Amino acid sequence: MERHFDEELRELKEKLLQMASLAEDSISRSIKALTDRDKKLAQKVIDSDDEINMLEIEVDEICLKLLALRQPIAKDLRFITAAMRINSDLERIGDLSVNIAERTLDLLQEPLLKPLIDIPRMAQLAQKMVKDSLNAFVNRDAELAHDVCCRDDEVDQLNHQIFRELLTYMFQDPKNITRSVDLVLIGRHMERIADHATNIGEDVVYMVKGKTIKHHIQEKENRGKT
Amino acid sequence: MERHFDEELRELKEKLLQMASLAEDSISRSIKALTDRDKKLAQKVIDSDDEINMLEIEVDEICLKLLALRQPIAKDLRFITAAMRINSDLERIGDLSVNIAERTLDLLQEPLLKPLIDIPRMAQLAQKMVKDSLNAFVNRDAELAHDVCCRDDEVDQLNHQIFRELLTYMFQDPKNITRSVDLVLIGRHMERIADHATNIGEDVVYMVKGKTIKHHIQEKENRGKT
Repeated sequence: MERHFDEELRELKEKLLQMASLAEDSISRSIKALTDRDKKLAQKVIDSDDEINMLEIEVDEICLKLLALRQPIAKDLRFITAAMRINSDLERIGDLSVNIAERTLDLLQEPLLKPLIDIPRMAQLAQKMVKDSLNAFVNRDAELAHDVCCRDDEVDQLNHQIFRELLTYMFQDPKNITRSVDLVLIGRHMERIADHATNIGEDVVYMVKGKTIKHHIQEKENRGKT
Repeated sequence: MERHFDEELRELKEKLLQMASLAEDSISRSIKALTDRDKKLAQKVIDSDDEINMLEIEVDEICLKLLALRQPIAKDLRFITAAMRINSDLERIGDLSVNIAERTLDLLQEPLLKPLIDIPRMAQLAQKMVKDSLNAFVNRDAELAHDVCCRDDEVDQLNHQIFRELLTYMFQDPKNITRSVDLVLIGRHMERIADHATNIGEDVVYMVKGKTIKHHIQEKENRGKT
C-alpha cells in the first residue's frame, strides 16, 4: 500500500507539472502575441484556456481523493494541500494570460502606440518567477521559493513605472488613450501573475519547512522580538 | 471523540465567519470612503488588512490540523477543503478592498470627476454576492450559491459599461485622465471581488452536492449530450 501511495503522489506531481507547463505556455504566448502583433496567437491563448480549466478540476479531484482515501499526515499532507493551492494559482495564471490576449486583440485594431520595452521586461520577470516557483516545488527548494517571493517588489515597481509613463502618453494626445489604458491593464495582469508566482513560492516554503512566510509573518515575528 | 470533532468544525466555521465579516467590512468601508470622500476611512481599510491576513493564517492552520489529526472523509472533508478555499478568497477580497482604498486616496487629491452612480451600484452587487455566498455556506444552500455564480455576468457587464464611459471622460479633457484611470482600476477591483464571491459560490455547491460547477462544466457536459 505504501508503494502505491508513493506512485499516486508521483502521478499528482506529474499532472500538476503538466498544468504548470500549460500555464507557462499561456503566459509566453500571450506576451509573444503582444510583441509580435500576432492576432492568431492571441486567439490561440484564449481558445486553449479550456484545457487548463479541465486539468484544474482533474488535479483537484485527485487531491481530494488522496485526502479522503489515504488520509495522509505530515509531509504528504502538506504536499497535497500545497498541490491544491498551486493548482488554483496556475488556473488563475491561465485566466490572466487570457485577459492579456483579449487586451492584445483590442490593441491590434490600432497601430503600435510605442515600442514596447518595459512591458516585455516585466513579462520576463513574471514568467521567470512562475518557472522558478515550479522548479522550487519540484526540487523542494525552499531557498529558491523564498527568493521568488522577494522578486515580487521589483515587478510591482516596474508596473508602477509603466503606469506613470502611460499616463504621460494619454496626456500627450487623446488618440493615445485607448491603447494606453489597454497597456495599463496588461501591466496589471502581469503584476497579478507575479503575485500568483509569489503565492506558489510561499506554498513551497510551507510544504518544505512546515511554517508559513505568508504576509511576511516571519519578519513581523522577528521585529516583535527585537 | 465524535462530539469533539463536531465542536472543532463549529469553531472552524465561526472563525471563517469572523474572517468573512472582516472582509465584508473592508469592502463596504472602501466604497464608503470613495463615495463620501473620506480619507480617514480609506486609511482605516488599509491599516486593518493585517488583521485579515493574520486570521487567514489562523484558519489555514486549523484546517490543516483537522485534516492531519481527524482524517475526515466525505462531507467533513469537503467542508474543510471548502473552508480552506473560501478563506483564501476572503483574504484576496481584503486585498482588493485595500487596492480600492489606495486608489481612493489618490482620487481624493483632486476634485470629484463626476457623480458616482454606476460604481456604487456595482459595489452593491459585488457586496451582495459576497454576503449571499457566505449565507449559502452557513446554510448549506446550493441553490443560493448557484444563484451567486450567475450574477457574475451582470457585474462584468456593468464594469464594461463603466470602462467605456470613463474612456469618454478621458477623451473630453486630459485633466480627467488620472482620475478616470483610478476609477477604471477601482471598477476592475470590484469585478474581481465579484469573481471571488463566485469562487465561494462554486465551493459551496461542491461542498453540498459533491460535484463541481466550476468553469460551467455541468453546462458543457449537458451540451455534449444533446
